[in-house]
Amino acid sequence: MKRILIVGIGAGDPDHLTLQAVRAIGRADAFLVLDKGEAKHDLVRLRRDMIRTHAREPYRLVEARDPDRDRAAPAYAAAVEEWRSRRADLYEAFVRDELGDDETGAILVWGDPGLYDSTLAGVEEVVERGAVAFEYDVIAGITSVSALTARHRVSLTRVARPVHVTTGRRLAQEGPAADDVVVMLDAHCAFAGLGEEFHIYWGAYLGTPDEILVAGPVPEVADRIRELRAEARDRKGWIMDTYLLRRVSPEPS
Amino acid sequence: MKRILIVGIGAGDPDHLTLQAVRAIGRADAFLVLDKGEAKHDLVRLRRDMIRTHAREPYRLVEARDPDRDRAAPAYAAAVEEWRSRRADLYEAFVRDELGDDETGAILVWGDPGLYDSTLAGVEEVVERGAVAFEYDVIAGITSVSALTARHRVSLTRVARPVHVTTGRRLAQEGPAADDVVVMLDAHCAFAGLGEEFHIYWGAYLGTPDEILVAGPVPEVADRIRELRAEARDRKGWIMDTYLLRRVSPEPS
Repeated sequence: MKRILIVGIGAGDPDHLTLQAVRAIGRADAFLVLDKGEAKHDLVRLRRDMIRTHAREPYRLVEARDPDRDRAAPAYAAAVEEWRSRRADLYEAFVRDELGDDETGAILVWGDPGLYDSTLAGVEEVVERGAVAFEYDVIAGITSVSALTARHRVSLTRVARPVHVTTGRRLAQEGPAADDVVVMLDAHCAFAGLGEEFHIYWGAYLGTPDEILVAGPVPEVADRIRELRAEARDRKGWIMDTYLLRRVSPEPS
Repeated sequence: MKRILIVGIGAGDPDHLTLQAVRAIGRADAFLVLDKGEAKHDLVRLRRDMIRTHAREPYRLVEARDPDRDRAAPAYAAAVEEWRSRRADLYEAFVRDELGDDETGAILVWGDPGLYDSTLAGVEEVVERGAVAFEYDVIAGITSVSALTARHRVSLTRVARPVHVTTGRRLAQEGPAADDVVVMLDAHCAFAGLGEEFHIYWGAYLGTPDEILVAGPVPEVADRIRELRAEARDRKGWIMDTYLLRRVSPEPS
């Protein structure tokens, strides 16, 4: 039986790889590496370096262009579904054309495959189509959330309290849904309107040599984060960042 | 300067260790291992095995009895604070008495040090007391949440939707605070009253040879989870489990 391994590789530091992920990379005959074009070239290079370091030779690198997503589409979820379906085409072709019987293919995923990543849903779509037969497994990875809190040396959760993980779009629409909120995929600094009752722990390019960390009461650091973010994004052509918002003196739980 | 490394070691599988954690263990001169008594002996043994496998000899193992927590206390948060403070005493003694100048001590933490773990807060308390001088760093680990979703091969998040991480106590009091809720520290199966609109992905002893996984609509699998949980807890004397609740057909986002 053909097999696909969906391998979480951590938030950006090559040493975020788990021993399980190292073994998975060492077991693969072929790797599917999707390229988002020039802009995120660093990320592709980091994945190639990991493969070169840990793969068992000989191995095959299968490269494909990641489909572009229609970011202007009004129906965000529908646009993501459509994009995911085109990604599923790539996964299906990888299994059908690039893997021999009993061979193993690996797909390396930033962070953890369970947290705001579409690879698993794309592979599930290939299973549902039923055109190619294969098994698959998921290897957990270090999330950018764990990387963020580790670098800030702050706990994600407070005693007996929940934490809400959401997107920048939702934060902008709804405000903080809990006293502790992690925000991902925020291109518009949706935190900026919050008052001094919220402390922010922000990080970009976590675990990489370009890492930037800023923490403080939102009104004191919001402008600095916005400037650093815009400057870094211009310079590098891409940015991946995330943050934790924490209400400093919440109601007793 | 003395240094403490707070090292996330993953959810139970020794191969959840990251390369960063392996290097941290290899850098330590001494390890503080807290023992919760007979009941959780497996967990202490797993940590000892990791140290034996990855530590650089010679190293010192410093063992201490983890303070008991008053689980009957009505003020849960206050009881945790008090317990944490007694833990801080152990950390302070470890730095003061067991580490030489410029030596590094490591504390191995299940899962990720940021997610419902008290080590970081205990170490912060030692810093605030100011009686011993040291630096410290946090090494991110694989959370039980990532381990759970990887083993179930399910995504934690759905497109453009949030996820709420909370405790069993809060779920019992408040019900599901979102369409996707992760519940930790639930000794009383607080999910049991939910209807078939919720799917549960449950896992215990994740990543270990004792791992148990159950998934399905809550009313169909609640009794089975309760029975498996009680049986395993009796047999082993302890249990660590977590689960994801997912509303099957949420309102459009």
